[in-house]
Amino acid sequence: MKVSLQDLKQTTLAVLARSGYPLDEAQTILDVLMYAQLRGNNQGVVKLIGAGMPRHKEVQPIKTVKETKLSALLDGGRNSGMVLMKYAVGLALDKAREHGFGIVGTHNTKSSTGAIGYYANHIAQEGFIGFVFSGSGEYVAMHGAYQPLFGTNPMAIGVPTGGIPIVFDMATSAVALFGLVEAKTAGRSIPPDVAYDANGQPTTDPSAALAGAIRTFGGYKGAALSMIFEILTHELVETRHLIDGHKDDWGNLVFVIDPELLTDSDSFKERVAALIERVKASKKLPGVEEILIPGERGNRILDDIIRTDLVEIEENLWTQLQKAAS
Amino acid sequence: MKVSLQDLKQTTLAVLARSGYPLDEAQTILDVLMYAQLRGNNQGVVKLIGAGMPRHKEVQPIKTVKETKLSALLDGGRNSGMVLMKYAVGLALDKAREHGFGIVGTHNTKSSTGAIGYYANHIAQEGFIGFVFSGSGEYVAMHGAYQPLFGTNPMAIGVPTGGIPIVFDMATSAVALFGLVEAKTAGRSIPPDVAYDANGQPTTDPSAALAGAIRTFGGYKGAALSMIFEILTHELVETRHLIDGHKDDWGNLVFVIDPELLTDSDSFKERVAALIERVKASKKLPGVEEILIPGERGNRILDDIIRTDLVEIEENLWTQLQKAAS
Repeated sequence: MKVSLQDLKQTTLAVLARSGYPLDEAQTILDVLMYAQLRGNNQGVVKLIGAGMPRHKEVQPIKTVKETKLSALLDGGRNSGMVLMKYAVGLALDKAREHGFGIVGTHNTKSSTGAIGYYANHIAQEGFIGFVFSGSGEYVAMHGAYQPLFGTNPMAIGVPTGGIPIVFDMATSAVALFGLVEAKTAGRSIPPDVAYDANGQPTTDPSAALAGAIRTFGGYKGAALSMIFEILTHELVETRHLIDGHKDDWGNLVFVIDPELLTDSDSFKERVAALIERVKASKKLPGVEEILIPGERGNRILDDIIRTDLVEIEENLWTQLQKAAS
Repeated sequence: MKVSLQDLKQTTLAVLARSGYPLDEAQTILDVLMYAQLRGNNQGVVKLIGAGMPRHKEVQPIKTVKETKLSALLDGGRNSGMVLMKYAVGLALDKAREHGFGIVGTHNTKSSTGAIGYYANHIAQEGFIGFVFSGSGEYVAMHGAYQPLFGTNPMAIGVPTGGIPIVFDMATSAVALFGLVEAKTAGRSIPPDVAYDANGQPTTDPSAALAGAIRTFGGYKGAALSMIFEILTHELVETRHLIDGHKDDWGNLVFVIDPELLTDSDSFKERVAALIERVKASKKLPGVEEILIPGERGNRILDDIIRTDLVEIEENLWTQLQKAAS
C-alpha cells in the first residue's frame, strides 16, 4: 500500500517519542530510518515494530575515551547507535576538515546504526570520501563454520561526485539480519544458500536460520572481509565482552579522507563524473536497460517518492507501526 | 615438479637482470614475486614469461607531485609497479609513524604491483593496519555490462596480530587476469560464470575471455567495490587517459592507520589473537578439518617450502623461466 510521506514521518516520530527518545534524538533516528525506508532498503521502519528499539534505560552522555588530532574513541553511553554515529561522523568530519583525515571509533552501544549508507552519503555530500563500518552481535559464521560469531558487518563507502554521491552500502553477510526478520514476519522462506540451522544444515526457514547462523556473501572473500570488519568494529574500538566471551557491545568505526590530500577536489569530482558517464555508456548485456551505479537504484525510488509524496509500505508493517505510535 | 628455493630465486634474479633491472630493483621485484609464488598465489613468476615485464625504456626517478604531512601523490616515472609501491608504502609508513595516518597515491606506471598482500603484510608486520589498492587497464565489466572498463581492482588489508599478520588480498574480479593467462597457457577452460566473450556471451575459453571482459565477483556487491576501487586508483590519483579515453596509466593507493589512534596497540593485538582463537575453535561444517583465517593457507605453503627448501612449480613454467634467464 502507499501512504503519504508526511504521515509516515509523523507516525515514525510518534513511535520514537513513545520509545523514550527526546525530540532531537528522535529527529536523528527519523532521518536515518527514512534514508533506508525511502530507498527500498530493509533497514527502515521495520526496526520499530516487534521489540522495536526503545531508548536504553540508563543512557549516559557520549564520552571521549581517547583523542588525538586525527582521531577519537567514543564511549557511547548506551545511546542509540544512530545518535552515536551521527556524533561520531560529525567529529570525524571536523578532524578531516582540519587535517585531511579523521577517524572515530565507538563502543558501549548495543543498538543498530541503521543503514550506514546514510553516514557515507553525508560524508560524500560534504566533499569527502567516507568509510563506515558497523559491528553487531553473533549472527554470522566464518567460512567453513556454522557457529555464529560475527555481526552482519556492513561497510559503506561514500564518494563525492559534484552531483549525487556514489554510495555503496553492503552487508558482508549473504542476507541482512532484517532480511531474516522480514521473511519470518511475512511467512516467506529464504534462499537455500544463505544460512545454516543450529545443527549446521542449510535451511530455508528464517526461524531456523535465526537460531543458527547466517553465511557470508561471496564465498571466502566475503568471509575474510567479515572477519576484518569484525576486528575494525570490535577489537580496534575496545568493545566489551561478557565473561562467557559473548559480545555485549556493538562497536563502530568511521574514517574520512579529504581528496585534497592527493589531488584537487573539484577536478577529482569531474573525473568521477566522467567515469560514471563511461560506465553508464558501456555495452549492456541482453535484457539490461540501464547500468546503475552504486546508490542509484535507491535514489530513483527516493525521487519517485518526492515527486508523488507517496511511500510504498507493506500493509502489515504500516498497521503495526500505527499501533506502536498510539 | 619441485625445484629448490635457491634455484628458483637465482633463476628469477637472472630473468630480472635480463629484463633490464638494476640489482636493487631486481631484489625488490624478487621479494614481491616470491611472496606470491611461495604462497600458491598466481601473481608469481608466471609474470616473467611470455611478454614478461621488461623495465620501461624511459624510466625516470620517482617524483613527489603533491605532499602534505599525512599524504603524498607520486609520479612513478614509468618504474616497475613493484619498485614504486615499495617506495609508496615506505613513505605511507613514515607518515603514519609520525602522525598516526599516512596515505600515498601513485600514477604514471603501467606495470603490475604483483600480489598486493605483500605490501599489506609488510605494513601489518610493522604494527599498522594497511589498506592497499591497485589499478590496471580495461579488463572487467560493470554489473549489467560486457564492455571491459575496470581493472581487476584488488584490495589487500593487513592487520597486526602480535604473531603472523592477518592478510587478505582479493581481486574484485571473478577471476584474476593471470588466472586467464595461466588457463590459456595450460590449455584449460575457465568456469562458465567468470567472463564474457567480445559479444557479451558467457564463455569458458580463456582466449575469448581475454578478448572480451572478466566479470566481477559476488554479483552487484563485487561490481560496486570494483567501481569504487577504480576511483581510488585512477580518479583520485590523477592517472592519465589517452585521447580515445583508454587508460594508459595504472594508479595505486595505500593508506596506513596506527591502531594507537584509537587504542593501545599491544592490547589490540592480544584481542585480535583472541578473536582468531575463537574463530578457529568455532563449530565446523561437515568435512571441514580446520577453519583458516585470511592468509593462513598461503602461510602453510610457505612453511612447507621453508622446511623442505623445495618449491612446487609447473614444469612448463619452470622451463620457460629458465629459457628467459639464459
